[in-house]
Amino acid sequence: MAGSPRRPAGRRLQLPLLCLLLQGATAILFAVFVRYDRETDAARWHWGNRSNADNEFYFRYPSFQDVHAMIFVGFGFLMVFLQRYGFSSVGFTFLLAAFALQWSTLVQGFFHSFHGGHIHVGVESMINADFCAGAVLISFGATLGKTGPAQLLLMALLEVVLFGLNEFVLLNLLEVSPDGDGVGGWGWAGPGAERGGRGVAVGARGCPSTSAPPPQVKDAGGSMTIHTFGAYFGLVLSRVLYRPQLEKSKHLQGSVYHSDLFAMIGTIFLWIFWPSFNSAPTALGDGQHRTALNTYYSLTASTLSTFALSALVGEDGRLDMVHVQNAALAGGVVVGTSAEMMLTPFGALAAGFLAGAVSTLGYKFFTPILESKFKVQDTCGVHNLHGMPGVLGALLGVLVAGLATHETYGDGLESVFPLIAEGQRSATSQAIHQLFGLFVTLMFASVGGGLGGLLLRLPFLDSPPDSQCYEDQIYWEVPGEHENLVQGALRAEEPETQA
Amino acid sequence: MAGSPRRPAGRRLQLPLLCLLLQGATAILFAVFVRYDRETDAARWHWGNRSNADNEFYFRYPSFQDVHAMIFVGFGFLMVFLQRYGFSSVGFTFLLAAFALQWSTLVQGFFHSFHGGHIHVGVESMINADFCAGAVLISFGATLGKTGPAQLLLMALLEVVLFGLNEFVLLNLLEVSPDGDGVGGWGWAGPGAERGGRGVAVGARGCPSTSAPPPQVKDAGGSMTIHTFGAYFGLVLSRVLYRPQLEKSKHLQGSVYHSDLFAMIGTIFLWIFWPSFNSAPTALGDGQHRTALNTYYSLTASTLSTFALSALVGEDGRLDMVHVQNAALAGGVVVGTSAEMMLTPFGALAAGFLAGAVSTLGYKFFTPILESKFKVQDTCGVHNLHGMPGVLGALLGVLVAGLATHETYGDGLESVFPLIAEGQRSATSQAIHQLFGLFVTLMFASVGGGLGGLLLRLPFLDSPPDSQCYEDQIYWEVPGEHENLVQGALRAEEPETQA
Amino acid sequence: MAGSPRRPAGRRLQLPLLCLLLQGATAILFAVFVRYDRETDAARWHWGNRSNADNEFYFRYPSFQDVHAMIFVGFGFLMVFLQRYGFSSVGFTFLLAAFALQWSTLVQGFFHSFHGGHIHVGVESMINADFCAGAVLISFGATLGKTGPAQLLLMALLEVVLFGLNEFVLLNLLEVSPDGDGVGGWGWAGPGAERGGRGVAVGARGCPSTSAPPPQVKDAGGSMTIHTFGAYFGLVLSRVLYRPQLEKSKHLQGSVYHSDLFAMIGTIFLWIFWPSFNSAPTALGDGQHRTALNTYYSLTASTLSTFALSALVGEDGRLDMVHVQNAALAGGVVVGTSAEMMLTPFGALAAGFLAGAVSTLGYKFFTPILESKFKVQDTCGVHNLHGMPGVLGALLGVLVAGLATHETYGDGLESVFPLIAEGQRSATSQAIHQLFGLFVTLMFASVGGGLGGLLLRLPFLDSPPDSQCYEDQIYWEVPGEHENLVQGALRAEEPETQA
Repeated sequence: MAGSPRRPAGRRLQLPLLCLLLQGATAILFAVFVRYDRETDAARWHWGNRSNADNEFYFRYPSFQDVHAMIFVGFGFLMVFLQRYGFSSVGFTFLLAAFALQWSTLVQGFFHSFHGGHIHVGVESMINADFCAGAVLISFGATLGKTGPAQLLLMALLEVVLFGLNEFVLLNLLEVSPDGDGVGGWGWAGPGAERGGRGVAVGARGCPSTSAPPPQVKDAGGSMTIHTFGAYFGLVLSRVLYRPQLEKSKHLQGSVYHSDLFAMIGTIFLWIFWPSFNSAPTALGDGQHRTALNTYYSLTASTLSTFALSALVGEDGRLDMVHVQNAALAGGVVVGTSAEMMLTPFGALAAGFLAGAVSTLGYKFFTPILESKFKVQDTCGVHNLHGMPGVLGALLGVLVAGLATHETYGDGLESVFPLIAEGQRSATSQAIHQLFGLFVTLMFASVGGGLGGLLLRLPFLDSPPDSQCYEDQIYWEVPGEHENLVQGALRAEEPETQA
Repeated sequence: MAGSPRRPAGRRLQLPLLCLLLQGATAILFAVFVRYDRETDAARWHWGNRSNADNEFYFRYPSFQDVHAMIFVGFGFLMVFLQRYGFSSVGFTFLLAAFALQWSTLVQGFFHSFHGGHIHVGVESMINADFCAGAVLISFGATLGKTGPAQLLLMALLEVVLFGLNEFVLLNLLEVSPDGDGVGGWGWAGPGAERGGRGVAVGARGCPSTSAPPPQVKDAGGSMTIHTFGAYFGLVLSRVLYRPQLEKSKHLQGSVYHSDLFAMIGTIFLWIFWPSFNSAPTALGDGQHRTALNTYYSLTASTLSTFALSALVGEDGRLDMVHVQNAALAGGVVVGTSAEMMLTPFGALAAGFLAGAVSTLGYKFFTPILESKFKVQDTCGVHNLHGMPGVLGALLGVLVAGLATHETYGDGLESVFPLIAEGQRSATSQAIHQLFGLFVTLMFASVGGGLGGLLLRLPFLDSPPDSQCYEDQIYWEVPGEHENLVQGALRAEEPETQA
Repeated sequence: MAGSPRRPAGRRLQLPLLCLLLQGATAILFAVFVRYDRETDAARWHWGNRSNADNEFYFRYPSFQDVHAMIFVGFGFLMVFLQRYGFSSVGFTFLLAAFALQWSTLVQGFFHSFHGGHIHVGVESMINADFCAGAVLISFGATLGKTGPAQLLLMALLEVVLFGLNEFVLLNLLEVSPDGDGVGGWGWAGPGAERGGRGVAVGARGCPSTSAPPPQVKDAGGSMTIHTFGAYFGLVLSRVLYRPQLEKSKHLQGSVYHSDLFAMIGTIFLWIFWPSFNSAPTALGDGQHRTALNTYYSLTASTLSTFALSALVGEDGRLDMVHVQNAALAGGVVVGTSAEMMLTPFGALAAGFLAGAVSTLGYKFFTPILESKFKVQDTCGVHNLHGMPGVLGALLGVLVAGLATHETYGDGLESVFPLIAEGQRSATSQAIHQLFGLFVTLMFASVGGGLGGLLLRLPFLDSPPDSQCYEDQIYWEVPGEHENLVQGALRAEEPETQA
């Protein structure tokens, strides 16, 4: 540790200066644009003379807190599996997500709650900002260990904007031409945009209790907007940053016994709170209730299929911790779009089972090919946990939306598929919109990831050398592991008189 | 690790095939029987035209999430204390609980919410399924390290059925003959069963806001149905699986420094969320509020008595982590039956104090006897944490129920003891029913545990050899602990140029 | 470990006997004084004939659970960073907080909810008791590693009383003479006290929905009453207990790699739940909502400034885990007083940024001076995390209170500043009261900490010798770290036949 200094001042100063610059910029933008919404503003709330019990805080804050735990505890510790990259995994998660929360408040605010020259914030914007941070952390997982913190902040700077843009297109703009063949062009959604104009502060994901425009594409839990987008953004970015000499740090790429246990903290917190993740932004009442229930069952099934497949393909029938840590979560991803729909409990089990199986097999067979053939070094295997299950989830959304009927949803159709309920769209048309949303998301993610990769390759940016990837020491003061313990034990052996 | 393969294909395939079989079976049963209840179904909820704020989701989901964290984080990490069994402890907890949630949805559904040929699910069934998973994990604690995952799934398969049956008997069937001496036989509870017949989807534990039959025996937090049942089922099962040669793996039976810290994660999450566990299924309003409060105080007292007794009986006055990790939680167990009653804050402290003391002394003095005299190898000491405190909790329920008066409960008597409030039963009669519930539970647990032990002894089942108990390697790909670190440190010493 | 016994019986018995004595005393006091409040009592709740949905449980219990997690998981694990003091850090946190919850129920109850000879308890008293436990744990942080558990219990015994007294003075008594110069004497607040007399059970922090007296000084999240008080109490106490020979245990004062990861569990849980901490006791509706939102933003900014400053002052631009673990949390402390006010989102960012920067620089530059010049050995750096940010938070409260206008708050002014709304006080006068509250708090903390230090120096108390500070072995049975692993590995190498 007392080695010679490795980094010139120009590189050492990148992280602190970038942090200060970004924080200064967002603070100024907050001062100019961000205001309390009518549920958090003292004057406006009391002016409305509503019962305190009606404040949206009580309907969404418990779910928000679960989401918040997933972002910081879940993602943070899930990535601690690397033996010498724990400080960076949990620390950079912390830094990136903290920045993304501020920045996405601004970006999403401009797209979804910009009225009278101001962005209005409350518990819904908090949930949406955490969702955007989740997408950034998924991309971080693809590039884990191979990028410095300043690079990662730049990645977040770009990705948050593209996330917001993609989400805006899917929710507000995407309207497949009704006279076309269903795969034709998309344009500005006239009526929706109009209504948006007179709307008040609303959640990005279209809570129907407000006067926001009804979403063109449904994606409450973000199979498309969060998981597919975050994964393919990160994978393409990782492709652009491909390091042919990465085996120089191969000895650091694995886990050790207790780093795997730390990672299980992340896994379990993600797993238990995923029902809250998918249900946090949905319609109140039966909507949140059903979404949580479907997600709960889907996760149980992906857990069973993960254990089954992991043991089936494991050497001597042994289970692999990488599968359990990751693929067991695929059940949450795969119902991100459809959990608020009438998926049925059986549908949730079937979807979860499939996602867990695909994800496990992906880790076993596809990740090596991804590196050798496609030159994508996917550290956390986000393609298996977020990429493929996200795409499957989008397709499941296509299917379940296409099956929507008035009989099944009753008056609840207005909450889940307002455009169908209002007669503006058939179920088939909604399905086509959903499918088109997937293509748009893949396009935004790929182009964005490519741009991000080029940005991060700027030669003056501080990046770890090949031999020091997956290594905390380059960015952190790292204490020893055992020396002091041994010294302590030796001293403890010495006889001593009581004070 | 690269040792010779140890298990023949017939054994290696047991886990994957059993997972696939069980998942397939529950999926089919879900398709046939399981439907959304009226609070989660889009059509039925909106047909009711109720305010979204009335959806039971908002009253029970935050508590559910705390219970969910206890099951997966709490139980999972509490058992990580073994030095080389962390992957199995947290991993098999994950697998067993995921299966138990599905399977108990079906079993409890058949007993408690089977109407019109369908089982109806929602947040109440989620809580009840998690409770059942808790009982399975308690039994897992007794047998930890000595059984393979396929054996454990079979144990869960059986235990979930017996748990549901025992719970059904206590809540719905147990009626001590009113003309008898109070310890006489029990039979089908006519009026209750009748009402059950016209009931709608209801929670198993008798939330009075529904038209379910009033419970014959009160046991909201499960001192009997969860803790006593789970503990004695596991202990009898462990007795049947007695391994006389277990000292062959004695070197693996202890903890190491950081495995004890991981276990404290489990302990603390169980401790903080236990008020939610006991209150999750009780009557709304004062019922949930009072239950949480009583549990909170009981746990503080069991913590103090645990530290007192642990230091008192420890060598040189030293505290024992095993006691702190476990006995401090006994306060939650001991008020499982009575916390919803008018136990009084003082009563909660006294009960918690007693439970912590009994549990600590059990670990110190009784666990060795249990093994040497009774041939029960109780890995986690579930007899001390769940067995004795569970029985004490049942007896406390007898006492507090017997003291119930109209004066103390006012109109709240209808919520807590509906049969007393309706004049169908005296407080003394309720107390006798409670006591009888304990006997029934002990009987179901013992017979069930015996059957379970015989099932798990089927010779073709994959079971770890005596010398490899408490060892992850037999079922998991286990990374090294330190080698890579050392290599990494050596490489880091080498001079290198910046990329 | 099998060393010679070190402590005579008189010292060994201190912890168990003190635990038993304290538990016995609080139990008796509970029996005499503590009763359910009208929201938890079966008879009183149902007598009120209110809807179960109105029970305060549903508005505060989810926040309470987050606070509870912060106290036990957050504080407990944050202090696990020491390499050989993990058992004590998490264990004594557990013990101290469990006792403090009981004892502060009594002390705060006497001050704030003592009516008709009884203390009334419910979710508000649970939150307030947890808050008091937080202050005790902050003081524990200053003295971590240098005191025995019996000493710590005595510290808690004293500190809880002074905490309650200070809080009572700030909330109920502190009234700056209206005709004075604003910094003159304070006396009994006549009208407030009167109203208190006819009040019912109320939260200590002045929830306006009850008939409690309006608070003289606002401090919902406890910048003064919790953080400033706890920090300076602990620092003065640590000064009195100054150990000039502490370098004898210097080899134990640092962290090791995985102890820093355990500490990050504490950090992250504190960070994610801090919005609930500050908002738990505020007015319902917009009050809780706005408080949570402000705290959320403040924490994101303190995280960015911590990373920026840590890298800026670190050797070779490296980040320091100590800063990330602690200073990133300063954003929660600094808005403890003002988050419920109309701080604005920008104000929250600015405050958080400042607090993170001050805290990081404090760790780097001031902590060494504190020890060398002021002879204060502040193990966890509570001066940097709670002391300075707490004082800054109090001053921020002065500023924001002084800026309060009817225009900004509308009818919400009644909730946030009832005395201003009622015309009893100007905004400037409120600001002066706030400032005076800070001085009173500093006085109580300093005098209390001095008394506490003298108490803990009583020569018969069991205290660790200088060379065994920061060492678990003196109070705990400590397992080995690696021996068994090595043995196990050796045995596993031996060939063996399957059972």
